[in-house]
Amino acid sequence: MPVLKNIGILYTCAAEGGQADIHPVKYAALVWERDKILWTGPEANLPEPYHKLESLDAGGKMVIPGLVECHTHLAFGGWRADEFELRSLGRPYLEIAKSGGGILSSVRATREASPEELLNKCLGHLQEMKALGITTVECKSGYGLNRDDELKVLQVYRELDRMQPLDIVSTFLGAHMVPPEYAGRREAYVAFLVEEMLPLIADAQLARFCDIFIEETAFTIDEAYTILANAIDYGFMLKLHADQLSPGGGAELAAQLGAVSADHLEYISEAGIQAMKNADVVAVSLPLASFYLRQPAIPARKLIEAGVSVAVSTDFNPGSAPSFHLPAAMTMACTLQHMSPAEVLKGATFYAAKALRMQDDIGSLEPGKRADFALIDAPSVNHWLYHLRPNACTASWKDGIQIYGQSI
Amino acid sequence: MPVLKNIGILYTCAAEGGQADIHPVKYAALVWERDKILWTGPEANLPEPYHKLESLDAGGKMVIPGLVECHTHLAFGGWRADEFELRSLGRPYLEIAKSGGGILSSVRATREASPEELLNKCLGHLQEMKALGITTVECKSGYGLNRDDELKVLQVYRELDRMQPLDIVSTFLGAHMVPPEYAGRREAYVAFLVEEMLPLIADAQLARFCDIFIEETAFTIDEAYTILANAIDYGFMLKLHADQLSPGGGAELAAQLGAVSADHLEYISEAGIQAMKNADVVAVSLPLASFYLRQPAIPARKLIEAGVSVAVSTDFNPGSAPSFHLPAAMTMACTLQHMSPAEVLKGATFYAAKALRMQDDIGSLEPGKRADFALIDAPSVNHWLYHLRPNACTASWKDGIQIYGQSI
Ligand SMILES: [Zn+2]
Ligand SMILES: [Zn+2]
Repeated sequence: MPVLKNIGILYTCAAEGGQADIHPVKYAALVWERDKILWTGPEANLPEPYHKLESLDAGGKMVIPGLVECHTHLAFGGWRADEFELRSLGRPYLEIAKSGGGILSSVRATREASPEELLNKCLGHLQEMKALGITTVECKSGYGLNRDDELKVLQVYRELDRMQPLDIVSTFLGAHMVPPEYAGRREAYVAFLVEEMLPLIADAQLARFCDIFIEETAFTIDEAYTILANAIDYGFMLKLHADQLSPGGGAELAAQLGAVSADHLEYISEAGIQAMKNADVVAVSLPLASFYLRQPAIPARKLIEAGVSVAVSTDFNPGSAPSFHLPAAMTMACTLQHMSPAEVLKGATFYAAKALRMQDDIGSLEPGKRADFALIDAPSVNHWLYHLRPNACTASWKDGIQIYGQSI
Repeated sequence: MPVLKNIGILYTCAAEGGQADIHPVKYAALVWERDKILWTGPEANLPEPYHKLESLDAGGKMVIPGLVECHTHLAFGGWRADEFELRSLGRPYLEIAKSGGGILSSVRATREASPEELLNKCLGHLQEMKALGITTVECKSGYGLNRDDELKVLQVYRELDRMQPLDIVSTFLGAHMVPPEYAGRREAYVAFLVEEMLPLIADAQLARFCDIFIEETAFTIDEAYTILANAIDYGFMLKLHADQLSPGGGAELAAQLGAVSADHLEYISEAGIQAMKNADVVAVSLPLASFYLRQPAIPARKLIEAGVSVAVSTDFNPGSAPSFHLPAAMTMACTLQHMSPAEVLKGATFYAAKALRMQDDIGSLEPGKRADFALIDAPSVNHWLYHLRPNACTASWKDGIQIYGQSI
């Protein structure tokens, strides 16, 4: 049962209050036992029974809950760096997609990749994400788009969850796009997903969430309704990629179906905002995608003012957001989305956990929750997100065990 | 005399051609002796006399010239993270400046800081910049704004140049703003700079460049002319902060006075572009400042198409660009400024060297130039700037000596 002392400032990021309430504690201490937090508070108030515990020195640094990365497309074959060059010179994303680039080129490369290749590539990414203070990672399928390759990717995620310390939360995104084999037969692909894939994945417990991409180039609202309503019946929780490149009623559908989160939302409507508020759907903002695609950002202020919880994530994927640098995405949430650093921190911890329906277990530093936390070399959350450095995280713990950084 | 072999791709970034010509060499080798490059080319063509040299293995990674950081305000007291929070919630930069924040608050903190404090803080930054592959850093004064504190900062830069491996190039920016002591007596401050500071700094050889901030809140074109014309007489080369928040004729003045560079230029006029082209003034683009201030980006495509050399730099400073992450700035140059990764690499190497008038010595990998180079864990420049990671640089050399990374 150790105690971390000499914490310059600790943000509990507990639920109470709104998006900006991250509950700072100055000169704090943190006590944990095995994988659970026992106590946090000002070090001066450390209860007597904890005075003689093995004590670690935070060196005056800042402590935050382990970052929760709630939206990635982690496993994919190949990369698409040359599309980045085309886009830098002005070619639109959808035009590149229509000429055979885009998601389709990642589908080809992912199908060609062996499970071992995917596994090793993901391990490298998770290693770097761990060093940034991330302790939980949501991972979507969606570059297989046939039975065997979707299963391959989801099995890679299961294996990753077993073999390295970060928690992996899997999401089935078979409805990422209609694959070329089904060109002109969209209904058949939807039927394949509903009749073959959903029962298979539910049965093997390979994914906790079912997700869909609602967009001109992907699925319609009606198709989404069919797939997601069936997913509920198979026991999946729901996520939606909605209103990214144009307003499409995705936020409203998410609310109607009781989805856990709706993600992107750059073009969300006023009605969508109200619907999400009423149904308590988390809005997952993805500033890197806005940044890389030069799209308008999500209207975060409107969402926050309406009382919607706004999570912040990278959307790490080989096309629109080829970066897993969550702290950089958090800085971008401040500049591009007009969120304050405190609001962003709550969005990458408690509300990101809520976007995975794991907020009772992770995302804040409170007694009974997992001892997932990170040590940040900054005097405040304002300073951390303002002073974009390669990496300000110097150590992190998952389930009470130090998984990154020098021993302190 | 060592040779670096097994380089997956090397970009010489030599002058020939335009902004996009970075001269890739696949499967390359690099030979140097003491601090100078002797030979680069395809490893298969390595001349016979070099076959028996001590050989290092680049492991298939990419090699670039050491990055040249050509515009920073490196030494300052304090930070301004709380202004970042205010701006994230929508307060304009100039409004914050007018209410006592902004540059003035950094002036107060810099005056209070001892030389040792400034030195140690800068050493920490330079240490992290070194790890990013940067080998030369331009550093401006301008937070002292009186005799002793301007000299203090410039002496810190001289000391830094002596005590750590990166080259420091100093710039006198006494004309950053009119300090409060001279409120209502602008002419007296201009006279102080011209009559007292310029000769003093020239005499002590404390700065190679003289710079000025032309803006509503800083100096007029006429004042700039007076100060810079005198600076030429004292032997300084010229730089200008111009056309950042509004078009002001700064680019035209830079051309008229034969400045080495004009920097910012978000609002440069068509006439300014032509004038800079004709006078071969380098345009230093500062994408982090556009990003942090949510300002329009520099019209880089227009500048490049007109034949102006466009350098890329961070503008590292505690207000508008509180990051020294040059590779992140380079990625932003691609997205915000519509430059291709190749154009950006030339902008952070050869053209950045040209912005310091050091292009005969550094900024490209050619025989006779300094052996300043960095090893990047990426298969191409497109991939490097597309896949924003905490840090993709794994080793770097300055004057032929490895200054960062594990021995290879
Ligand atoms: Zn996504
Ligand atoms: Zn500047």
